[in-house]
Amino acid sequence: MVSHDEQLGIAMLSRTVREQRPLVHCITNYVTVNDCANALLAVGAAPVMADDIDEVAEIAGLAQAVVLNIGTLNRRTLASMVAAGQCASALGRSVVLDPVGAGASRMRTEAAWTLLRDVRVSVVRGNLSEVKALLGEAAVTRGVDAAEEDIRGEGVCGAAAAANALARRSGAVVAVTGATDVVADGRAEYTLAVRNGHPLLARMTGSGCMLTAVTGAFCAVAPEQIFRAVAAALGAMGLAGEQAAARAERDGGGTGSFRVWLIDALSRMDEAALAGGMKLERLA
Amino acid sequence: MVSHDEQLGIAMLSRTVREQRPLVHCITNYVTVNDCANALLAVGAAPVMADDIDEVAEIAGLAQAVVLNIGTLNRRTLASMVAAGQCASALGRSVVLDPVGAGASRMRTEAAWTLLRDVRVSVVRGNLSEVKALLGEAAVTRGVDAAEEDIRGEGVCGAAAAANALARRSGAVVAVTGATDVVADGRAEYTLAVRNGHPLLARMTGSGCMLTAVTGAFCAVAPEQIFRAVAAALGAMGLAGEQAAARAERDGGGTGSFRVWLIDALSRMDEAALAGGMKLERLA
Amino acid sequence: MVSHDEQLGIAMLSRTVREQRPLVHCITNYVTVNDCANALLAVGAAPVMADDIDEVAEIAGLAQAVVLNIGTLNRRTLASMVAAGQCASALGRSVVLDPVGAGASRMRTEAAWTLLRDVRVSVVRGNLSEVKALLGEAAVTRGVDAAEEDIRGEGVCGAAAAANALARRSGAVVAVTGATDVVADGRAEYTLAVRNGHPLLARMTGSGCMLTAVTGAFCAVAPEQIFRAVAAALGAMGLAGEQAAARAERDGGGTGSFRVWLIDALSRMDEAALAGGMKLERLA
Repeated sequence: MVSHDEQLGIAMLSRTVREQRPLVHCITNYVTVNDCANALLAVGAAPVMADDIDEVAEIAGLAQAVVLNIGTLNRRTLASMVAAGQCASALGRSVVLDPVGAGASRMRTEAAWTLLRDVRVSVVRGNLSEVKALLGEAAVTRGVDAAEEDIRGEGVCGAAAAANALARRSGAVVAVTGATDVVADGRAEYTLAVRNGHPLLARMTGSGCMLTAVTGAFCAVAPEQIFRAVAAALGAMGLAGEQAAARAERDGGGTGSFRVWLIDALSRMDEAALAGGMKLERLA
Repeated sequence: MVSHDEQLGIAMLSRTVREQRPLVHCITNYVTVNDCANALLAVGAAPVMADDIDEVAEIAGLAQAVVLNIGTLNRRTLASMVAAGQCASALGRSVVLDPVGAGASRMRTEAAWTLLRDVRVSVVRGNLSEVKALLGEAAVTRGVDAAEEDIRGEGVCGAAAAANALARRSGAVVAVTGATDVVADGRAEYTLAVRNGHPLLARMTGSGCMLTAVTGAFCAVAPEQIFRAVAAALGAMGLAGEQAAARAERDGGGTGSFRVWLIDALSRMDEAALAGGMKLERLA
Repeated sequence: MVSHDEQLGIAMLSRTVREQRPLVHCITNYVTVNDCANALLAVGAAPVMADDIDEVAEIAGLAQAVVLNIGTLNRRTLASMVAAGQCASALGRSVVLDPVGAGASRMRTEAAWTLLRDVRVSVVRGNLSEVKALLGEAAVTRGVDAAEEDIRGEGVCGAAAAANALARRSGAVVAVTGATDVVADGRAEYTLAVRNGHPLLARMTGSGCMLTAVTGAFCAVAPEQIFRAVAAALGAMGLAGEQAAARAERDGGGTGSFRVWLIDALSRMDEAALAGGMKLERLA
C-alpha cells in the first residue's frame, strides 16, 4: 500500500476537478465519444470535442488538457491531433494519448509513433498489447476492446516492465490497464499498481476511452503531479466499475445497466469514497 | 403566465408531432447524434441523419424539417449543411440552427454566420455565449456544454435582449437557453420565458443538441406557428428534465440514470402533462 | 414451426459466439456505432471499428466477419467498405450488408448496388423498403428508422417474395425485418419467418443496426451455416426486445430504459432461453 498521506493526496484531486471544472479538449473516436463526454461531465470536468484542422489549435488553447484517441483515426484527424497536441504542449498543458488498437494495423502503430515523436505527450494510457506495439514488440492485438485478458498472461510484472520501458523512451507517464492497472514513470521503484476494477468493464465498449478522457481531467488540474493524477483517474474509474458491478449483482442488471450505473458512480463519487476505496500498491 | 388558451395551443403541438410523425433530417455532430435520434423518436418524430453532399438535398427534400448543428463541424459537412438548408427553405420547410460553440473558434462563428447568410434559418437555438458571438459581441465561451451558468450573470433580461437582437437581424425565431429559457422573434413585447428545466441537464452532454432536434420536430408540424413550436419544444424538454430529476432524487440516480430517464420522460409525455407543466411567461 | 432439432441447432450458435468470441469488423454509421459495439459485446463477440482506407484490409484480415452499414455513408467510407469486404471474402469470411436508407437517395441505392457487385456479400439485412430499392422497385422510404410499419402493408408474403428475389439475384442470404422477420436464400420452400420482436424496437434508433452487427457475430462462428446464423441473430434480437418490453411494462420504463434493457437482455441470454423463446416458422 502507499502511505495514508499519499492516498489522501491522490484522492483529493477528485475534489479539485469538481472545483476547477477544467475544460478538456478531446479528439477521439466516434464509437465512444459520447461516453467520453459524459464521463468528463460526471467527474466534474467540461468536455469540448473538435477535430477540424482549422479550429483545433484555438480550441486546444482554451482547454486545460488535450486527449488524443486514435480509435477511429483517419488522415484528416491525425493532422488535427498533432496540431492540437503541439498547441497544448506549447502552453504547458497536459496531453494524454490513448493508442487504441496500436499493433492491429500499421497505420495505427505509426500514428501513435508520430504523436509520440511530434507532440510532448504527458501520459500514455493503453492496454499491454498496445504498449508493446509502441515498444516495437510483436503483440497479438485482438480488436480494441480486448484489454481485460491480455495482462493476465504476463502478470503485473510484464505490464510494469513494459510501462517503464515506454515511459523511459517517451518521457511520458505510462498507464497499462488490465486486470490490474500499472502506472510508471520509468523508475521501477516508483511503479504503482491499482487493483480496482471489475471484469464487466471489458464487456462494454468505451471503458478504456472514458478512462483516458478522465485522466485528461485529472491531469488538467494537477500539471505538476501527473503521476498522481493518473493514479487518481485509474482509481476513480476502477472504483466506479466496482460500485456499478455491485449494483448489477444486487439488482440483476446486465451490461446495459452496468454502463449506466458506471456513469452514475462516477458522478456521485467524492473524495472520501475515493480515498477509502482506491487499492494502490507500490510494486517495488 | 400566458393565457390558458395559448398554453393549450402550444401543448397540443406535442400531439400533432405524434400523429404526423414528421421526418427530421439532421446534419449534426458525432458526439450527441445518437441522443438526437432517440429524442426525436421519443417525441414521436422520425430521424434521418445524412451528411454527404451527394445526398443531402434529396434527403432534405423528403423531410419536413432540417436541423443543422455545428458541434463537430468540418469543411465537408458545412457545404452539406448549406445545401440541405437551401433545399428545405426552397420547399418552405423549417430549418433549425444550433450554433454549438460559436465564439469558441473563428471557424465556428464564421460557419454559423455563413449558415445564417446563405440559408433561410427559421430558428436559432443556442446559449447566451453563442448568441452573443453571432451578434459579434465578445463572449467568453467555455466549451460547448457550459450553457447552464452563463445566463445567470446577465439574467433573463440580457438573454431576452440578445435573443431579440439576433431575431431582428436574422429574421429567425431565437431561443436562448440557460437557467431560464427565452424565445424571441424580435418584438420585445412578445418575448417568452420558459421556466422549466433542471441543473442536471447541464451535467450530461447532448441536452442542448436534443432540444434543438426536438425543436425541429415541433416546427415540422407547425410551419405557420414557429414561435409556438419553439416554446413547446423548450417546455417539453425542460419538463422532461424536471421529471427525470425528480426520479433521480427519489431513486438515487446519478447522471447516467438521469440521461436514460430524460428519454423515458420525453417518450411518455402527453399533451395534458405538457399543458399542465409548462411554465411559460410573457416577459413584457 | 421448425423441427425441435433445428431449433436447438440454431439456438446453440449463441453459445458458440460466447465460446469463440469472434472479432467483428464494422464499418458503420456514426449514429448507432456505439450501440453496435455494445450489442456485439453483449452477445459475446468483440467489435473493432475502423474505416480508413489505409487500414481496413488489415483489420478485416484480423476479423472473423465484416459488417458494412451505409447509414451515414460518404465517398471516403464507401471505398473502405469495398476494400474491407473484398479482403474478408478473399479469406472466406462472412460479409453482412445493411443497406440503411436504400431508396431514400440515389447515392445510397447505388452504394448498396456497388457493394453487392464488388463484394461477395453473405447476408443482406434490411427492411422491406430497402430490399425493394435494391431490387430496383419503386419504394417509398421514410427515413431510416421506419422499418416497423412498412412490412405490414404487404404482409409476410410480400417480404418473403422480395427476400427470395434479392437472394436469387445476389447470392446472399436475405433477411427482411419488420413486424415479422423473414429469412430467405432464394428457395421459397425454405423461407423462414421469425415471429419475435416488439414495436418498441422501432421507437429507438439502432435496433436494426445492432441486429445487423449481431448477425455478423453469428455468421462469424458459422460460416457454413449462414442461413441458421441469420435466424439465430433475428431470434436473439427479437427475443431480447420482448424481454426488455416486458420489463418496461412491468417497471414503467419508457424508450430510454427499454434501450438499456435490450442490451441487458442480450448480455444475459443463454442458449436455453433462446431455444425456448425463438418463434421460427417455415413459410412454405
